[in-house]
Amino acid sequence: MINSKKINLTSILPIVSAALAVCIMLIFASSLRAAGPDDDLMNRAKTIFGPLPSSMPSPDNPITPEKVRLGNILFFEPRISIDRTVSCAKCHPPGLYAADGLQKAVGNHCKDNPRNSPTILNAAAQIAEHWIGNRTSVEDQAKQALTGPPAFGMPNNEAVETVLKAMKDYVVLFKTAFPADKDPVTITNFAKAIGAFERTLMTPSPFDDYMKGNAAALSDQQKRGLRTFMDTGCMTCHQSPYLGGQMYQKFGIIEPYAKYTKSAQIDDGRFAVTKNEADRFLFKVPILRNVAMTPPYFHDGSVDRLAEAVTIMAKVQLGRDLATSAADDITAFLRSLTGKMPDSILTAPVLPAEE
Amino acid sequence: MINSKKINLTSILPIVSAALAVCIMLIFASSLRAAGPDDDLMNRAKTIFGPLPSSMPSPDNPITPEKVRLGNILFFEPRISIDRTVSCAKCHPPGLYAADGLQKAVGNHCKDNPRNSPTILNAAAQIAEHWIGNRTSVEDQAKQALTGPPAFGMPNNEAVETVLKAMKDYVVLFKTAFPADKDPVTITNFAKAIGAFERTLMTPSPFDDYMKGNAAALSDQQKRGLRTFMDTGCMTCHQSPYLGGQMYQKFGIIEPYAKYTKSAQIDDGRFAVTKNEADRFLFKVPILRNVAMTPPYFHDGSVDRLAEAVTIMAKVQLGRDLATSAADDITAFLRSLTGKMPDSILTAPVLPAEE
Repeated sequence: MINSKKINLTSILPIVSAALAVCIMLIFASSLRAAGPDDDLMNRAKTIFGPLPSSMPSPDNPITPEKVRLGNILFFEPRISIDRTVSCAKCHPPGLYAADGLQKAVGNHCKDNPRNSPTILNAAAQIAEHWIGNRTSVEDQAKQALTGPPAFGMPNNEAVETVLKAMKDYVVLFKTAFPADKDPVTITNFAKAIGAFERTLMTPSPFDDYMKGNAAALSDQQKRGLRTFMDTGCMTCHQSPYLGGQMYQKFGIIEPYAKYTKSAQIDDGRFAVTKNEADRFLFKVPILRNVAMTPPYFHDGSVDRLAEAVTIMAKVQLGRDLATSAADDITAFLRSLTGKMPDSILTAPVLPAEE
Repeated sequence: MINSKKINLTSILPIVSAALAVCIMLIFASSLRAAGPDDDLMNRAKTIFGPLPSSMPSPDNPITPEKVRLGNILFFEPRISIDRTVSCAKCHPPGLYAADGLQKAVGNHCKDNPRNSPTILNAAAQIAEHWIGNRTSVEDQAKQALTGPPAFGMPNNEAVETVLKAMKDYVVLFKTAFPADKDPVTITNFAKAIGAFERTLMTPSPFDDYMKGNAAALSDQQKRGLRTFMDTGCMTCHQSPYLGGQMYQKFGIIEPYAKYTKSAQIDDGRFAVTKNEADRFLFKVPILRNVAMTPPYFHDGSVDRLAEAVTIMAKVQLGRDLATSAADDITAFLRSLTGKMPDSILTAPVLPAEE
């Protein structure tokens, strides 16, 4: 009896093997099924956004290690401001993803700046800098900040040069970065050094891994959010690998934004630069890289929470009432744009001694 | 003729060898002569100052890696101040050797602080913190700064706790650093974490190498300066491996300091704390580690240049008119106290997200 009930392993081996093969095929087929939609979504995202470059070069300011090194040091230098408290890092502190977490930036002697500090990470490839595009490049931004009354507040460029020339380590650093220049400690070179540094500040993120083919880099919710982001039309303005920075757009196409942002003041936007009525309420479309790490939102920092900012954008730009779940999905997707910060900006250099 | 003038190398080898031996002996003897004075100076310095420890422990707040990690992050955190601009790093920026380069510190809403920001490097082993000793320890300093009106300016400790508790990464970090606590996000623990971090901030310098026996670590001028520093009596107050921080002393023993510092105001010093007339114009003797990197000098930052500060100190504390060369030698010696900054404070951590 007992013997007859013993299972004959040899006899069932073909059956077990066949079952295993079916299982493996099913698993494989299911992974293929999962890969199908991911392939579509990946390809669509790749086509729309494209790969994040490894730097943001400019023909006017070639990136060299020596310029980047000097720019990295100057980025943290407060002694070139009128009250010796303002450095680039003041409004772009590395620990907060190079934004400052304030509604509007605060400059020398606690002067209010007109608008919110955007992050400088991935920012150099934009059509212009500042919310209203009144800085043509990161170099122009760096240069103009020095004498900007609510920024560094220096009386003129020469005053900055005098401070820098008084520190012998800076003279060496400028000479090394600009070896062909007879008198290298100039504001033009200051701007080039800061610019070269900023042009290296890329933050590749899980979204980039996804576009490269790693389906596991985004959660299911983030994939839904990516699809909704594209289907709803957000990507019409938030283009390029930076998801923004490539055009101006009116804030409040469908309805005035302040109805929802509760902004205390209405900002004329780019009209302030061009005096062209068509530019009223136009702002540069902000890049969305690291957006989850850089609240508060909008040009006036009027909204604290990302999901609320998403909902408002859909309403006033696209006339869409996003379901809470859709706003949450888009918000989850936007979190996949939080990238790895470069070591350079996270490592504060020791600044030159004053004597 | 030519052949007879040829030098017979074999015949002169003993002479060459003997000459070489004499040379080597002379060099060796000369190095022995040089080592003699160095030994005396080294031993004297070692006896007076003693070796710099590897950390500054406190029985009340044992240093753990988890506390240090949390403290390092909190050190850079500005969102716990009333205007969200003040972090510990604001008055102690790493790039300026954890001092701020200002005459007097500037706090929230640009409020003036009463005195100059000292560096926090090597600072935890002092008898007390702040120029007038009104903070008992680095932990006490960190805690009181939060509600100090010209510092972080928060209305109360609970307001700080609320900000921290709203960021889930902080809750995890506090729990990890204080695993025995049921409700670890407290100001007491905030202070312990900052304190533990500060207790690790040592900056060993060439002077330490010299005291360890490396005669080449100091230049001849620095050695003269060290000797003058000790012979003139500076080390009477600037004691310990920190060259200060171990006592209070009247500023202006021989003459009123303001005669030389041109200070705009006279500071009552520790009298403000104790209301004891004997404490009028007393200040904690500042540590001199990294002093060359942390101008301006004195409790009110009234003097910019180190050699001038040295000259004034000799005059008003010791009644000595230092020759320019002696002041320069001491200044050169003080530069040997500029040490290597710890990587931890030079590496800005990414701060927890707000949602």
